[in-house]
Amino acid sequence: MNQTVIELEEKARAARAASHRLAFLSTEIKNRALHNISSDLISRQDSILAANRQDYREAENSGMNAAMLDRLMLSEERLAGIARDVLAVATLADPVGEMFDVRTLPNGLIIGRKRVPLGVIGSIYESRPNVTVDISALCLKSGNAVILRGGKETIRSNQALVKVIQDAVYRSGIPDGAVQFIDNTDHVLVEKMLKMDRYIDLIVPRGGSNLIKFVAETASMPVVTGGIGVCHTFVDRAADIQKAVAIVYNAKVQRPTVCNALDAVIVHKDIAAKYLPAMALELNKAGVELHCDARALEILKANPALKLKTATDEDWGKEFLALIAAVKVVDSLDEALTHIEKYGSGHSEAIITEDYSCGMRFLNEVDAACVYLNASTRFTDGGQFGLGSEVGISTQKFHARGPLGLKEMTTYKWIIFGSGQVRP
Amino acid sequence: MNQTVIELEEKARAARAASHRLAFLSTEIKNRALHNISSDLISRQDSILAANRQDYREAENSGMNAAMLDRLMLSEERLAGIARDVLAVATLADPVGEMFDVRTLPNGLIIGRKRVPLGVIGSIYESRPNVTVDISALCLKSGNAVILRGGKETIRSNQALVKVIQDAVYRSGIPDGAVQFIDNTDHVLVEKMLKMDRYIDLIVPRGGSNLIKFVAETASMPVVTGGIGVCHTFVDRAADIQKAVAIVYNAKVQRPTVCNALDAVIVHKDIAAKYLPAMALELNKAGVELHCDARALEILKANPALKLKTATDEDWGKEFLALIAAVKVVDSLDEALTHIEKYGSGHSEAIITEDYSCGMRFLNEVDAACVYLNASTRFTDGGQFGLGSEVGISTQKFHARGPLGLKEMTTYKWIIFGSGQVRP
Repeated sequence: MNQTVIELEEKARAARAASHRLAFLSTEIKNRALHNISSDLISRQDSILAANRQDYREAENSGMNAAMLDRLMLSEERLAGIARDVLAVATLADPVGEMFDVRTLPNGLIIGRKRVPLGVIGSIYESRPNVTVDISALCLKSGNAVILRGGKETIRSNQALVKVIQDAVYRSGIPDGAVQFIDNTDHVLVEKMLKMDRYIDLIVPRGGSNLIKFVAETASMPVVTGGIGVCHTFVDRAADIQKAVAIVYNAKVQRPTVCNALDAVIVHKDIAAKYLPAMALELNKAGVELHCDARALEILKANPALKLKTATDEDWGKEFLALIAAVKVVDSLDEALTHIEKYGSGHSEAIITEDYSCGMRFLNEVDAACVYLNASTRFTDGGQFGLGSEVGISTQKFHARGPLGLKEMTTYKWIIFGSGQVRP
Repeated sequence: MNQTVIELEEKARAARAASHRLAFLSTEIKNRALHNISSDLISRQDSILAANRQDYREAENSGMNAAMLDRLMLSEERLAGIARDVLAVATLADPVGEMFDVRTLPNGLIIGRKRVPLGVIGSIYESRPNVTVDISALCLKSGNAVILRGGKETIRSNQALVKVIQDAVYRSGIPDGAVQFIDNTDHVLVEKMLKMDRYIDLIVPRGGSNLIKFVAETASMPVVTGGIGVCHTFVDRAADIQKAVAIVYNAKVQRPTVCNALDAVIVHKDIAAKYLPAMALELNKAGVELHCDARALEILKANPALKLKTATDEDWGKEFLALIAAVKVVDSLDEALTHIEKYGSGHSEAIITEDYSCGMRFLNEVDAACVYLNASTRFTDGGQFGLGSEVGISTQKFHARGPLGLKEMTTYKWIIFGSGQVRP
């Protein structure tokens, strides 16, 4: 074992040791730590912004594209936003210690479940440096230790942020070792980390599909996979056309590079002739490229000003992360449901309709983390759902689904109060 | 792909297809199916018992030991008990469809979580044929399809039981394919099954530690590991000696071959001289072999009638599954907690004490699925906890901990009711 692997194991062991004490900290101490992090992010912003400028320059010189550069960049305003998010986590209810399903059995045993932290969370993520702060805040509040491994392109920003976080939490009475950062970006260390199931209870990867696939296949501990969103919006024949245009526009245009952005619009044939031209006009203004099936094309080609392409097989089930939308006309709600079952990624799906029964069928039958009736899929987000920020978004069914907030970073144990009971 | 693998995949695909409809069945239909299973187990008992006799004879001829033979054996009474357990599942509340965490956001969106089945459960188990019925009943009631793969030694009993279950459920209106049974015990098929994450959402292995390890390492879908119990009972210095003797006796003797049976007794030094002789006398009557550390031995050797052995390093952290108990004397509650953290398997741990603060510290600090104060660890069981029977017992922290009942076989999805909301 070389030196860096030994160091990694020491960090993991320190996190595990800290987790035993973190589980019993009062809400007061955890909140104090969050307040300290928040204020220090502002008072020590110079060091953070200087580090970020270095990352930015290096990324720019290496030819990183503008969208990626924007994700990487910190500013005074963005840092203030991150600091505010930390305070928001402080205001959330502490999930740890909650007793639930408590009851007295006929034999007099009082049994119930008590909510406890998972222990040590491993976080492997790319690019955006705010993730470093978000995840640290959520893990601390939920009583978990955390081991952070960010991307190479933001290594200096992350180091500066972690320094601020560590200083702030330790002076608040949080045990040493609660927040660990792997500052060596050698890929081999990620592999080693993913085998440390002795120390790490859960891995949450955040990034592109290659990263997530690699982590899921390599890790020997549980992994929450997610963050890949192939999101459909179905415009039913009973849709309110104005609402449908506004929702589809928002879902596609408001932030096209994220997982809850729209990828495909499915339109009922009975409304297509009225709806599609209105939708296409709006999307076109925002520069959205439409990849249309034959029936949608037939309707839209009447307007020669629209930027249209013929959809290919690859367009269905594709996460575009760009100003592109696939467009398909269907004969029925059933056909829409079948299409979504085949091509959806189980992230966020929406129906626009004024027909009560169609809406309820869609909500019930679509098998996804988040299913919407008459709203934009862009709301799938821990902050928007009122969970505070999020550790990630799960598209698996196991343990937790959708945004991972505080409660999703906990487990429970059964507590049994007896008075000498034995099993007959 | 050979014929049996093709058949396996067909079964898995059929289970997946059935699961889509199972998720929407009314509680009434599911309960009707459970009642039909229960009555058919009795009315068709001749075929089941005949098949079981064949399994028994073959196992006997192959030299299976008495304890294993007893686990395998069905009788009219045992079958009646299994049928009663199915009826008990029918009386439990249906977890599917429950809405929770529902609230209205400031923007008017109504969001909440809706409990839904996991989908398809794969069950790989050994020996006891009642597992075939228990798991089928729990999966049906929780709206899941199930693929059963039992042990070779009970293949005929399982075939007969599954035939009864399948006939009963399909005539109740449950979709074809909901209960699948793999009647080829070729080990290669288990490996293939563990890679069918397209069709199977969760694997629950039940059996020895080799089986569980193999499944956890091989499966490409989530696995609930558990069922390995290294269970300690700590007799604190403030224990009520009579209660402590009765509880330790029950935890060790009432059924020594199961995972929630006691493996080690840890005794506070201040009570050891009074408690140990009383405990040893009772356990000795039941034929329990005591593997004692030096301090326990020093106290107990005063009575030459006791059957004592010196504990070796291998005795700590060992699941005996037999009438053997390790015995250790400690200086303090802290030493007991450290020992349990090092050697426990996260299953069931108990403290016997009249000291309130010591009891609460133990309940809070021990990191296990089930932690007891003044009661026998033998209660860790879905039936005893009021969950109905159980699919298995989880010793992991992820998703569910302890007995896996109906609720633990479900997940949730977020449902969002909008009225045109878009994200600002």
